[in-house]
Amino acid sequence: MSLTHMNELGYAKMVSVEEKKDTLRIARAIGEIVVSAETFERVKTGGIKKGDVLTVAQVAGIIGAKRTSDIIPMCHPLNLTGVDLEFNMIDETNTIQITAIAKVIGKTGVEMEALTAVTVAALTIYDMCKAIDKEMVIQNIYLAEKTGGKSGYYLRTKEN
Amino acid sequence: MSLTHMNELGYAKMVSVEEKKDTLRIARAIGEIVVSAETFERVKTGGIKKGDVLTVAQVAGIIGAKRTSDIIPMCHPLNLTGVDLEFNMIDETNTIQITAIAKVIGKTGVEMEALTAVTVAALTIYDMCKAIDKEMVIQNIYLAEKTGGKSGYYLRTKEN
Amino acid sequence: MSLTHMNELGYAKMVSVEEKKDTLRIARAIGEIVVSAETFERVKTGGIKKGDVLTVAQVAGIIGAKRTSDIIPMCHPLNLTGVDLEFNMIDETNTIQITAIAKVIGKTGVEMEALTAVTVAALTIYDMCKAIDKEMVIQNIYLAEKTGGKSGYYLRTKEN
Amino acid sequence: MSLTHMNELGYAKMVSVEEKKDTLRIARAIGEIVVSAETFERVKTGGIKKGDVLTVAQVAGIIGAKRTSDIIPMCHPLNLTGVDLEFNMIDETNTIQITAIAKVIGKTGVEMEALTAVTVAALTIYDMCKAIDKEMVIQNIYLAEKTGGKSGYYLRTKEN
Amino acid sequence: MSLTHMNELGYAKMVSVEEKKDTLRIARAIGEIVVSAETFERVKTGGIKKGDVLTVAQVAGIIGAKRTSDIIPMCHPLNLTGVDLEFNMIDETNTIQITAIAKVIGKTGVEMEALTAVTVAALTIYDMCKAIDKEMVIQNIYLAEKTGGKSGYYLRTKEN
Amino acid sequence: MSLTHMNELGYAKMVSVEEKKDTLRIARAIGEIVVSAETFERVKTGGIKKGDVLTVAQVAGIIGAKRTSDIIPMCHPLNLTGVDLEFNMIDETNTIQITAIAKVIGKTGVEMEALTAVTVAALTIYDMCKAIDKEMVIQNIYLAEKTGGKSGYYLRTKEN
Repeated sequence: MSLTHMNELGYAKMVSVEEKKDTLRIARAIGEIVVSAETFERVKTGGIKKGDVLTVAQVAGIIGAKRTSDIIPMCHPLNLTGVDLEFNMIDETNTIQITAIAKVIGKTGVEMEALTAVTVAALTIYDMCKAIDKEMVIQNIYLAEKTGGKSGYYLRTKEN
Repeated sequence: MSLTHMNELGYAKMVSVEEKKDTLRIARAIGEIVVSAETFERVKTGGIKKGDVLTVAQVAGIIGAKRTSDIIPMCHPLNLTGVDLEFNMIDETNTIQITAIAKVIGKTGVEMEALTAVTVAALTIYDMCKAIDKEMVIQNIYLAEKTGGKSGYYLRTKEN
Repeated sequence: MSLTHMNELGYAKMVSVEEKKDTLRIARAIGEIVVSAETFERVKTGGIKKGDVLTVAQVAGIIGAKRTSDIIPMCHPLNLTGVDLEFNMIDETNTIQITAIAKVIGKTGVEMEALTAVTVAALTIYDMCKAIDKEMVIQNIYLAEKTGGKSGYYLRTKEN
Repeated sequence: MSLTHMNELGYAKMVSVEEKKDTLRIARAIGEIVVSAETFERVKTGGIKKGDVLTVAQVAGIIGAKRTSDIIPMCHPLNLTGVDLEFNMIDETNTIQITAIAKVIGKTGVEMEALTAVTVAALTIYDMCKAIDKEMVIQNIYLAEKTGGKSGYYLRTKEN
Repeated sequence: MSLTHMNELGYAKMVSVEEKKDTLRIARAIGEIVVSAETFERVKTGGIKKGDVLTVAQVAGIIGAKRTSDIIPMCHPLNLTGVDLEFNMIDETNTIQITAIAKVIGKTGVEMEALTAVTVAALTIYDMCKAIDKEMVIQNIYLAEKTGGKSGYYLRTKEN
Repeated sequence: MSLTHMNELGYAKMVSVEEKKDTLRIARAIGEIVVSAETFERVKTGGIKKGDVLTVAQVAGIIGAKRTSDIIPMCHPLNLTGVDLEFNMIDETNTIQITAIAKVIGKTGVEMEALTAVTVAALTIYDMCKAIDKEMVIQNIYLAEKTGGKSGYYLRTKEN
């Protein structure tokens, strides 16, 4: 098996996928941002309107998913048919867990779109909270599940 | 102290920075991607040309830094005066550590640009290796150091 | 019936359209910009070359239609198969009426693309004339007609 | 006085502004979207979370302001130093009035950025409500006030 | 035969292609950049790492192909299924010849995508070498071959 | 002298320009597209409206100049203060010569912006004429003149 993004000369290329089938492909990615206790509380209760940071992060994640092929050089452009994000506030560790699901009917998977959605959402939370917290860490970003295409169903079982 | 990205009604806004001074601002961010032993070896030795995955990731990180205000909703657009990345192969843990430095002379810091560079580089490595490795994890993304602006010099000392 | 762009938690999402059929979808949108008598005359007769402002607005509208999913957060990206604009100079009211038609074979309608084309064309006229006219008004932007998809044919009959 | 966006041959150009001074420039634009009574109520009370449509429109408006020079051909790129939007629910007429303020320290005004913010916010509201309302109209988009630059202070006094 | 990008009023439009068939379409474009002897040698042997300029140009060409419909006004957006570039160092004339291949299954050809890939790669080489060479010339950019669609196979036979 | 876009490890970077002075920088680039006699005549006389292809190319060139740092990886983002293009119809050789001028007050030159404007204009002419002419060649793209910055005034004297 080889790194498919290399051409015969060893240069990067956008892999040819003409012969792949158009199937429904779904990917679910997960990531998290660990913040200070104060930041965590602020994001939860907000100043005035609850959840605003997360709403902006939600929008950013969706936009980010759509920009994936603009920022990841070898990614195929594709017409996403659905994107959604979900935020899970984990009190014990002041952690905001982000899950993103991306869907397409196409010739290539949407792992990168789901991962980009998670990442952009995390960066957006970082941006909106950085005035009160410089020690935030974005971590544990991985592919949780995918379906569709020749390689079939995948569910991550490895402990993180 | 308050979440500066909120207006009086509690909605998100792009913070006004007209009254801030134009100073040299530099930020250094760090992140990493943990891969399988096989992927690690491939990235190091390549098929044909050594380091190609990292060169593409380098270019992607620089482009990503320039797209920061496109993908992070409340980020100010700014004219970066310099971006560089460095990759550190940590054999013990099959980890590729990514450091990015962003610079600007401007009214706002470039933390987000450095963090975006790191993140996009990590996602690009993920993209180029995902055909042989589905279990990669992107982690430990944080601001390591920054200088410039009213808040002055910051060096992260917290253990990660 | 519900606001389809909300997920179960009430957050915005990009609606899933995988199960919708690929059909030919066409949308026609209309809008207008009211200018001063002098501006109107200038746009009509130009300084040197007739119609140049409208030609630039035409190009801008087409480019705008292609950028729709970049600027409207919940819009699906899609491969437009045709876009055209038409300008109608209404002398009585110094009004430039703009009509845009967008077409696609896809799973979602192209109302937003037609509306964005009209809007960007109007903003471009505004931009090119604002040195001589600060009182222009962009108005009456609406969907005039659409066809394709489950909801079928729609023709606006309401008086504006 | 002439249409400044034309070169000597009558073609469009991006006007030279090198000799203009860097001053603080602020623009305020206004626009509105008229919706059905049902849509109006939904936007106000939401399904689950109040105000979500407006939050997305707020984010979209800010992003739109940053994309102005991408979509308006002759607009100068500039580094906005602040953008904010405000929504005013006018019950009598089922109208959502949108106000946007854009700021920069630069050589050109930010009218187009404020107008684009308003327009993109209106289009976003349209997009999120179009499943329940096809008769919405975007209207009365104009420059309300601007300051900075050689032409100085402007306040629209004309009745709309 | 007529200039298809004009509507009945003589304005530019994005041609309607709804009725065209989805077929595999491939285009190959060629171009070159002539540099000084010193620049040529540097690109070949690099300072430290061989071929780096070309690797960046390769990535840029692929990204450029994906941006084609963003920068060429009447180009249809499409989901490229593959892009590759190849560089040929012609010692006799200090010329770097660039070949790009673009592929899609769609209703329109990908000549513009292949040509844009070549052009962006050439501009990138120019950018990276311009500190040591101001006299470089980009030249001989043309369509070499295309297949797919109604017009069928085309191979350029004209001497350049 | 060295390839400035390389860091110490030989990877590409965006060169640091913080210490350069803000000066007025102007660049003039030239390029051309050779077309068939029929295409040349069509561009000159148009079907219905004279010069339309060139007007679209003009707009595209200006937009292209603004996108330079998006498509050329190591280019610094900058706020162009002016862009203009001029087309020269050379009857003897069925050649459309394109000249672009880009201006900025900044720390880096605008050669790439002028070259990108020329190139995008040429590609746009190609795109609009390709239905009637597959043998067009884009050629002789070079920097004609530049001023500003430490290296001072440059005028190309080499015969092309």
